[in-house]
Amino acid sequence: MIDAVLARIDADLDPSLERLMELLRIPSISTDPAYAEHCDAAADWLVEDLKSIGFDASKRPTPGHPMVVAHHDGDGPHILFYGHYDVQPVDPLNLWHRDPFDPAIEDTPNGKVIRGRGTADDKGQLMTFIEACRAWKAEHGTLPCKISVFLEGEEESGSPSLIPFMKDNAEELTADIAMICDTGLFDENTPAIMTQLRGMLSGELTITGPDRDLHSGMYGGPAMNPARVLARIIAALHDDEGRVTVPGFYDGVPEVPTQIKQQWEALGFDADGFLGAVSLSEPAGEKAFSPLEQIWSRPTCEVNGLNAGYTGEGFKTVLPSIASAKISFRLVGTQDPHAISASFTKMVNDMLPPDCTAEWTDHGANPASIMSIDHPAFEAARTALSQEWPNPAAFTGGGGSIPIAGHFKTVLGMDALLIGFGKDDDGLHSPNEKYDLSSFHKGMRSWARVLNEVRGL
Amino acid sequence: MIDAVLARIDADLDPSLERLMELLRIPSISTDPAYAEHCDAAADWLVEDLKSIGFDASKRPTPGHPMVVAHHDGDGPHILFYGHYDVQPVDPLNLWHRDPFDPAIEDTPNGKVIRGRGTADDKGQLMTFIEACRAWKAEHGTLPCKISVFLEGEEESGSPSLIPFMKDNAEELTADIAMICDTGLFDENTPAIMTQLRGMLSGELTITGPDRDLHSGMYGGPAMNPARVLARIIAALHDDEGRVTVPGFYDGVPEVPTQIKQQWEALGFDADGFLGAVSLSEPAGEKAFSPLEQIWSRPTCEVNGLNAGYTGEGFKTVLPSIASAKISFRLVGTQDPHAISASFTKMVNDMLPPDCTAEWTDHGANPASIMSIDHPAFEAARTALSQEWPNPAAFTGGGGSIPIAGHFKTVLGMDALLIGFGKDDDGLHSPNEKYDLSSFHKGMRSWARVLNEVRGL
Repeated sequence: MIDAVLARIDADLDPSLERLMELLRIPSISTDPAYAEHCDAAADWLVEDLKSIGFDASKRPTPGHPMVVAHHDGDGPHILFYGHYDVQPVDPLNLWHRDPFDPAIEDTPNGKVIRGRGTADDKGQLMTFIEACRAWKAEHGTLPCKISVFLEGEEESGSPSLIPFMKDNAEELTADIAMICDTGLFDENTPAIMTQLRGMLSGELTITGPDRDLHSGMYGGPAMNPARVLARIIAALHDDEGRVTVPGFYDGVPEVPTQIKQQWEALGFDADGFLGAVSLSEPAGEKAFSPLEQIWSRPTCEVNGLNAGYTGEGFKTVLPSIASAKISFRLVGTQDPHAISASFTKMVNDMLPPDCTAEWTDHGANPASIMSIDHPAFEAARTALSQEWPNPAAFTGGGGSIPIAGHFKTVLGMDALLIGFGKDDDGLHSPNEKYDLSSFHKGMRSWARVLNEVRGL
Repeated sequence: MIDAVLARIDADLDPSLERLMELLRIPSISTDPAYAEHCDAAADWLVEDLKSIGFDASKRPTPGHPMVVAHHDGDGPHILFYGHYDVQPVDPLNLWHRDPFDPAIEDTPNGKVIRGRGTADDKGQLMTFIEACRAWKAEHGTLPCKISVFLEGEEESGSPSLIPFMKDNAEELTADIAMICDTGLFDENTPAIMTQLRGMLSGELTITGPDRDLHSGMYGGPAMNPARVLARIIAALHDDEGRVTVPGFYDGVPEVPTQIKQQWEALGFDADGFLGAVSLSEPAGEKAFSPLEQIWSRPTCEVNGLNAGYTGEGFKTVLPSIASAKISFRLVGTQDPHAISASFTKMVNDMLPPDCTAEWTDHGANPASIMSIDHPAFEAARTALSQEWPNPAAFTGGGGSIPIAGHFKTVLGMDALLIGFGKDDDGLHSPNEKYDLSSFHKGMRSWARVLNEVRGL
């Protein structure tokens, strides 16, 4: 049954690409209000495309850009597929070697690529799933499972409408499992199912000392300097082993299960190459853990920005009134961002010298996402992907955050299969974004195989 | 002899003010090339004014704005008076309540003030000396000493021509002692002779880690973060007693002589008021020293700026490639800025973790200035000032740097009497700069008394 679908996907590669190009030509930049009508047009295009496969598809209004929701009956488990049709802005435009919204297939030393804004993030990826459905329907007149499609148009602008929409339409959107195509391969030969993603607590710490900037000749000595206070606080946030010193920080940090750890070790992660690519040679995280564990399964505390006093050319003899740092914590397991925020704030206040005040402004707090991989769809998907790609698929972690995965769990109670075909050099959010033609082609085939494996569950 | 001069100063206050107003109306902003002709005009005005008193005065070219040099014979010791005729820019102009170059006498709750750019820094101050000479000449037909006047037009733009001009004209400019009028009173009742000024070593420390900014999701953990490294270095620069930890830093830091220390204690410095004015309550410098000692006689290490990663609104999950700090050391005694620069650089490099580099860019290195107060002119001036003001004059220190004082010592081998009549609220370099009418009036009288006391030495 699957062979016919795969053959159909191969035969129809050109018309599949034609459809993707149509979608890519719509400049659906969600952050810029000037592009609102294009976001709307992209939603319309997807509704029509899903209808052409037989989905009951509709554009659904939100206070921001519309959602696309589509349903198709089927016999197997109910699957909810998520993707997003909005794209990043294209600045700086002068760094693009072609119009970002005039996509094309280009030959490169590493093979053919689809070049254009949104090719990898996320239009090319979401279309791998839709095209797999189309091929299946064309061959068999139906779909292998009951499938709902849920496409968002605000992913690149913070998804303000997402959770309210999910809550308002919980019954309609709840399925047996979610599938999300917005991640990457582990490497060009190794597919990945991302089963754990770090959460994040981020914010700005501002230390205030004197009520105005002072002259360091007049006040240097007796005046408290908030830049020095801030440096002392930051220096105290890690011990010599690279561990974060915020009290209670490691509450809820789990051990990686042996099964997962073995899969990670089998990946043969090239830590030297990973660090060497950015001119580093030694892993700087917790000494007791491998670089891959440091990224995927260990929490961090990082300084993302520092600002105080005079930062222009030359020199000014100012004693700053204010010093601030952007600080973020990457979280794992069941670490509680709110508890950590409170403990961090207390630690900072305990360190303050007289005449200093500290303010911590939260910029976001999301717990980590860990999938329950004992749902049989996880092993089924791993089997399916291992059939398509040279190397077996692995359950991997992700150092960053993909909030939607957590939302499916917390709002709708579903686990999510995070499967994607992007590569590290796709240039997400950057000029000259591309998606390998092989990612698109084998992505469609991968989803057909995944649906084939899960339909009997 | 002095009484007649003082009476003449009192009687001629109005014409003295008229002359000052003429000079103040010339917008001699030295940093802005658009005002070059006005700097030239101010020099011309001073040459003519000095000639009117009988000085052999001339405008002397430099690669920048001209110097004014004038000589007048006399019987006593040879005195070189220094001042500067250039002024600071006036931005932001909208914060001035009158045209900065249309000066006027204004009534304020604290008495009459002369309002305008350059009133206190330094035209009003330098004219106190010239007017004292004029009154003496008018009464006695000669001057009390041999007097040379040396006026600069680049003080507010770094004095690029000063040292070369002093070297080229060393014989002409060398006198028995220098007098400089560019400082302030200790308080409204207490005149000050500043006998020690801190030096300064300043620069920018840049720590580089990865060769580009990284994503904290992708690299957070194994990637070295230079902002954290910088914070550790800054935090290590002071111990818990507030002492600077750079090896050898305190080499050349002298004890304050008992005689000077007693004068300082007698000043009754209001540390609470000084700190309270900027919302501080506890001195933050070396615990073993009083706040006044911390400012005048103790060296410091301060952070004047911090910059790393993302510093705009909101948040970006960047791991910065570079973190930098503007750092300055205020120096006293015979501390050697070059030795400290080398020791600091070594200390920083010793603290660097793998994959990090540090660069220290010097922005300036001047040793401290300490006058040899055993020159009899110092006690003579103290006696003279004590006759004019309610409280006795004190030898004071200065927390900042006045490079000219050091240059007189190193280039011409002269000590300098730093006497001035400015007040803390004069608004130097700020909008609505003013000079108290009493500063101007009693300043003229003070110089007459000083000349009277030193003429017999």
